Amino acid sequence: MRVLGIDPGSNCTGYGIVESHRNSLKSIHWGSIKTKPKALFPDRLKSIYDELTRVVGEFQPDIVAIEDLFFAVNAQSTIKLGQTRGVAILAAVNASLTVAEYTPLEVKLSVVGYGRADKNQVRDMVTALLGLRKKPEPLDASDALAIAICHLHNQKTSKRLQEALSSRR
Amino acid sequence: MRVLGIDPGSNCTGYGIVESHRNSLKSIHWGSIKTKPKALFPDRLKSIYDELTRVVGEFQPDIVAIEDLFFAVNAQSTIKLGQTRGVAILAAVNASLTVAEYTPLEVKLSVVGYGRADKNQVRDMVTALLGLRKKPEPLDASDALAIAICHLHNQKTSKRLQEALSSRR
Repeated sequence: MRVLGIDPGSNCTGYGIVESHRNSLKSIHWGSIKTKPKALFPDRLKSIYDELTRVVGEFQPDIVAIEDLFFAVNAQSTIKLGQTRGVAILAAVNASLTVAEYTPLEVKLSVVGYGRADKNQVRDMVTALLGLRKKPEPLDASDALAIAICHLHNQKTSKRLQEALSSRR
Repeated sequence: MRVLGIDPGSNCTGYGIVESHRNSLKSIHWGSIKTKPKALFPDRLKSIYDELTRVVGEFQPDIVAIEDLFFAVNAQSTIKLGQTRGVAILAAVNASLTVAEYTPLEVKLSVVGYGRADKNQVRDMVTALLGLRKKPEPLDASDALAIAICHLHNQKTSKRLQEALSSRR
């Protein structure tokens, strides 16, 4: 299974593609979409949508996992983040992909095993789990890889749970 | 000039098209996009985007005016509203249209002349300004018509101001 993880942000949206092979994880590609701070917001939304649509087309993920947001610094940033998230989800749905959502807490618990881990600790763990020689840059991209890993861990747990439940019958 | 006004909402997004002819305003069409509350949120975003894209294609507005949001009841609704707004803006930008943004206060002051007007008062004024026999339904659609009227009023004021300034030179 190939997962595209997305960490939406109006200034920088990170993305990362991770594939699971039996018991190992393999990173396929990662990167970030930086928008010009001076550009009009609608144009910034369009560039995020267009770039994610390109990534989806090029790397053909099976599913998209995106960070769920509950709050931001203030209402204005929350709306901006919501708008960015909206076009990211649309890029997935317009490519007929299912969207899975995970909170930052779920991602940290799943990847680092510690809910208060900071972005650097998340990156260190992502680097180890994917067996990378260099730490992925920027932090938004490693966050996106972490979201993709969280989805794959989650799938594995659900599968095991189903197997355990069916073996009891 | 033909303006498409949009009042974004995750349950119901209103839209209304208004055209200016010299000193009069004419309504072309209005309606609302209701999404199924039980549908997955990504699918609801897609239906809003698809329907607005259809409206833009059918009625060929010159510009899109959308309500600017600063807050909502809580962070979760603010994000939902932001996501809806994001895909509405994207429908406009993907059709190469400029997006103008107005706060609810600007719309009310421009249409009713009173910043604390409620949705019913806005609808009564919209009905009068557009010379409609019946009040537009639902309230989200009359709000969208009000946003379009606000943009046309604003354009007129800017034009007058420019004329006044250039005649002084």
